Amino acid sequence: MTAEIVSVGTEILMGQIVDTNAQHLGQLLPEFGIVHRYRQTVGDNAERLAEALKLALSRADIVFTIGGLGPTEDDLTRDGIAAALQEELILDKVLEERLRKLFALRNLPWMETQIRQAMLPPSAEPIKNPNGTAPGLICQKDGKIVIALPGPRGEFVPMVDGPVHEFLTSLAADEVIRSRFLKVVGMGESIVEDRLRDLMSVDNPSVAPYAKPGEVHLRLTAKASNKVEADMMLRPLEAEIRSRIGDAIFGKGNQTLEEVILELLRKAKQTLSVAESCTGGGLGSRLTNVPGSSDVFVGGIISYANEVKTSHLDVHPAMLSEGGPGAVSAECAEAMAQGAAKNLKTDWSLSITGIAGPGGATPGKPVGLVYIGLQSPRGVQVEEHRFRGDRSSVRERSVLSALSLLWRELKHG
Amino acid sequence: MTAEIVSVGTEILMGQIVDTNAQHLGQLLPEFGIVHRYRQTVGDNAERLAEALKLALSRADIVFTIGGLGPTEDDLTRDGIAAALQEELILDKVLEERLRKLFALRNLPWMETQIRQAMLPPSAEPIKNPNGTAPGLICQKDGKIVIALPGPRGEFVPMVDGPVHEFLTSLAADEVIRSRFLKVVGMGESIVEDRLRDLMSVDNPSVAPYAKPGEVHLRLTAKASNKVEADMMLRPLEAEIRSRIGDAIFGKGNQTLEEVILELLRKAKQTLSVAESCTGGGLGSRLTNVPGSSDVFVGGIISYANEVKTSHLDVHPAMLSEGGPGAVSAECAEAMAQGAAKNLKTDWSLSITGIAGPGGATPGKPVGLVYIGLQSPRGVQVEEHRFRGDRSSVRERSVLSALSLLWRELKHG
Repeated sequence: MTAEIVSVGTEILMGQIVDTNAQHLGQLLPEFGIVHRYRQTVGDNAERLAEALKLALSRADIVFTIGGLGPTEDDLTRDGIAAALQEELILDKVLEERLRKLFALRNLPWMETQIRQAMLPPSAEPIKNPNGTAPGLICQKDGKIVIALPGPRGEFVPMVDGPVHEFLTSLAADEVIRSRFLKVVGMGESIVEDRLRDLMSVDNPSVAPYAKPGEVHLRLTAKASNKVEADMMLRPLEAEIRSRIGDAIFGKGNQTLEEVILELLRKAKQTLSVAESCTGGGLGSRLTNVPGSSDVFVGGIISYANEVKTSHLDVHPAMLSEGGPGAVSAECAEAMAQGAAKNLKTDWSLSITGIAGPGGATPGKPVGLVYIGLQSPRGVQVEEHRFRGDRSSVRERSVLSALSLLWRELKHG
Repeated sequence: MTAEIVSVGTEILMGQIVDTNAQHLGQLLPEFGIVHRYRQTVGDNAERLAEALKLALSRADIVFTIGGLGPTEDDLTRDGIAAALQEELILDKVLEERLRKLFALRNLPWMETQIRQAMLPPSAEPIKNPNGTAPGLICQKDGKIVIALPGPRGEFVPMVDGPVHEFLTSLAADEVIRSRFLKVVGMGESIVEDRLRDLMSVDNPSVAPYAKPGEVHLRLTAKASNKVEADMMLRPLEAEIRSRIGDAIFGKGNQTLEEVILELLRKAKQTLSVAESCTGGGLGSRLTNVPGSSDVFVGGIISYANEVKTSHLDVHPAMLSEGGPGAVSAECAEAMAQGAAKNLKTDWSLSITGIAGPGGATPGKPVGLVYIGLQSPRGVQVEEHRFRGDRSSVRERSVLSALSLLWRELKHG
């Protein structure tokens, strides 16, 4: 089966946003054995959109559209699909009713423009959108399928991972493609490739690495005539990979590093706090993005100013005054981790202090110099890093390195 | 003049990388009055690439290709361009010589596959690539232009910002397109459209809205024969928009809401702290992503556990115990903001407490219920929100609403 993605939005063409939705979908399609050879991006223009859809329908079995489903005059995807399928939009009374109720419930003024979102091509089934007003669409006509998805990330991802995933599963290919992911931290992509080169040259089952900031994800894929057979190909492959780089594999599937960490702490019935300087809350934010983190993660101190390091983390003022090692130092990272663990009464505490740039460098302390402290039940330790990149990548890598340090310690604990 | 971008690479289709190169180019083209209506993305396949290029040449004056210029068998862009222009690749002896010298100089083994990078369509002029081995190409034939650019970011950006920028300038459009952005917060896209409908129906100067999470960006664009004239069209348009929705416009150009806030505080010589519960540091992280935030932003307390709200933010324990209003309440948000301002000694303090979900809801307190507190030099206030969406969108909207509240207060201060 073949697919094509048509991303809709002048803001994508103009570079105001990057098309991470198409990326998400592109990563998903191989799981269903769907081959995807083209992507088109068009602006908010009904004619060009219809033209792009006709082209896509001429060469793919399934066409996905992303964006342009909202209530405004710029939201033309429904019109484009209808034109490409040679249909006329009709009002869906059930959808209209649902929309009006939603607006009443939220106490929002109803505007007649909203009704566009209840207009459907006759071949369409709406897909519920619990996170927004515009439903998605699945249109089936003349052996072709058009799936229209909303653009806002918070609506797009749940719709793709939920109902669209289900729909694609139901298309039931007679070849089964099974994948699993192994996730690696603290080992560069080239080292991973080097250790797995022979496995990566095999076609089925295959191993493909994807580098993410600070992590490498390995996708193991097997094609077979049924699930059991595919899984029987994957099992020994996974075992072989684990025997070579198992020390760096922190999880599988959709598990994130922070989820693995919180789970290890939960099992040990231990608690965690953070003390953040240059990341300003980014580490705490990442940890608390995991639902249920509150039974392990207690809180933290964002000690951006030196006074807060002293008043809330018990960093000795002499350490921060002239002649001392300063706020960006191993000593300070150590004191911050100890102070947070003590004041917030936690078993573990991670601290980050560094120079994210572009300003703030001093002789001997360049931009990218970051110290990560870890107070554990066994004592305190510090890591020094020298990251390259701009402010946000230094901050992101600081958070990842802190998590990586904590994971390694927890694993051996 | 019209342009089209053809991005080449199976890794883009599969979602292994996001196409930030096309974004960079998309942002640049309007500066030259170049209209850009389509982007195509194709994998590493010579036939499909040639087909995409033919389509692009049929509807645009300039076609940009990105990627596929390297030495490997997967690098097929040169072949695709030659096929689309009905030419045969020929070896450029000067380029070959330069490549061989480069390899000798860098002490790299010469492989015959490298020679692909010296093969050009006859209509091509090479573009020097000081950051890599493969040159770019500018092909001019039958009134059409094809510009081939390398995919690696470190080669692409300097080539675009240097020689390609120069080339486009030399095309000397007799029409100038000037744009400016106005950024709106705290007003939905449909209300903005409603107030500006008549202005948005005009073609030149034009107004187009782009919805971002929590914000709406308006792009004002004027076409004229010179800059002065275009700017003279934009000025009254901007004034008219400001007269209608000026209260919600927080900035222009590339300014972010957090930059505007920090600048207002800096001018007032006032300081800010945060107290975060359900956002776990996301607000602090966002504020400190602005370079130089340290002269205004002092720090914060991540009070995920109730004990931290009590010990570090002076929230009265009775408020959090049974029968009290609880951690997710207007009272608690108020106490958190007051406590942070007092303990961190700041003029302003923002607090966030809420239920991000998916768990944690109780009768009368659904997922998405969030209280935002603001302690200002004039006193304390609280806003109640009921957000929809998944955990991360509730958290993101909480951060945005907190920033929006602070901005409105600062503006009137």
